Amino acid sequence: MKPTITAFAQSPDEGQGLARDMPVRWALEEVGLPYEVRLLSFSALKQPVHLALQPFGQIPTYEEGSLSLFEVGSIVLNIAERNAGLLPADPDARARAISWMFAALTTMDAPVFDYDLALFLDRDQPWYEHRIKSLEEMVRKRLGSLAAHLGNSDWLDGAFSAGDLLMVSVLRRLEGTGLLEEYPNIAAYVARGKSRPAFRRAFDAQLAVAKAAASD
Amino acid sequence: MKPTITAFAQSPDEGQGLARDMPVRWALEEVGLPYEVRLLSFSALKQPVHLALQPFGQIPTYEEGSLSLFEVGSIVLNIAERNAGLLPADPDARARAISWMFAALTTMDAPVFDYDLALFLDRDQPWYEHRIKSLEEMVRKRLGSLAAHLGNSDWLDGAFSAGDLLMVSVLRRLEGTGLLEEYPNIAAYVARGKSRPAFRRAFDAQLAVAKAAASD
Repeated sequence: MKPTITAFAQSPDEGQGLARDMPVRWALEEVGLPYEVRLLSFSALKQPVHLALQPFGQIPTYEEGSLSLFEVGSIVLNIAERNAGLLPADPDARARAISWMFAALTTMDAPVFDYDLALFLDRDQPWYEHRIKSLEEMVRKRLGSLAAHLGNSDWLDGAFSAGDLLMVSVLRRLEGTGLLEEYPNIAAYVARGKSRPAFRRAFDAQLAVAKAAASD
Repeated sequence: MKPTITAFAQSPDEGQGLARDMPVRWALEEVGLPYEVRLLSFSALKQPVHLALQPFGQIPTYEEGSLSLFEVGSIVLNIAERNAGLLPADPDARARAISWMFAALTTMDAPVFDYDLALFLDRDQPWYEHRIKSLEEMVRKRLGSLAAHLGNSDWLDGAFSAGDLLMVSVLRRLEGTGLLEEYPNIAAYVARGKSRPAFRRAFDAQLAVAKAAASD
């Protein structure tokens, strides 16, 4: 039986693949696991039937037989634990890859998400310039640390892992801001992630949903 | 050989136990694993020897033989995987507990941390009133979802797990703001977590560091 994930029927990003179903789709494509998608309207997110799966009314969720999960990190980790290709076999290296998964979704995502949100929501506020500069500095601080760690390596720690999958997913939110280009090795790292066939398949799948929604 | 974690030599919270070594100490106490602590000054966090362990220059880290980890979520998960007491044995329940770990450190921590930071850092900023109100609403939205899920249960999903350990750790950052008290079942949940003997031992251990620093 194929697993079923949930995604937005109409993603706010209109097909840029920034919603949190995208890393789950990417992980499923990396390990070669076919899946079904249940699309949800914004009002469906608040219904009891969805809240029973996702207490915060978000996407994605993951259902497979008796297993029901939420949170993108938890879903990607579960896929990575049960299928080859996203975590190293060596226990120490596996644990380090999981460190990078948490780093992507907490240490990196927090300032990146705040910055991205302020770009859209606060633009007309009188204090916009001041705030966006302070958020930019925090994002640069994190990118500087990441660039120093990455150096000339292709991936964060040895072979491509679920840590890279989530880090590239988070960094994609900075595309178009010019910040990634300030760190050429990070820009190349994001491009490297996006050039993976599994990424392309996942991206195209979510884009098809956005195109169908636009033509309704 | 005992594992070694890192913590602030002088924690900014002066012994409230809000720094991110606290959940790691608590997890180690829950499973009964003795540990060593290496205290770091703020300048030591930026040194190459620490950045090799923690690329973002943060605490905590975890070293045990050949294993070297960073990120509080990853460390607590690793402790929970290798020792009984923090994750259920049933695979589905285990995966759900990990969903709650990610929910605590991403979905709940992001607005709670931003709110707490703004209370201290943005008070003199022109956007303070606007920002603090919008953050408070976001925190209330998350607390409302959590309260609805928790209901009359003692813990988030069956027995106490690493998910509860991290959720209580995140929620403690709201103590003193009055927000927890708006959701009596959440206030009781936090109190329940804090009354665990392992929490008390961990709290006292970090408090002893703060007291020693203050008397220097």
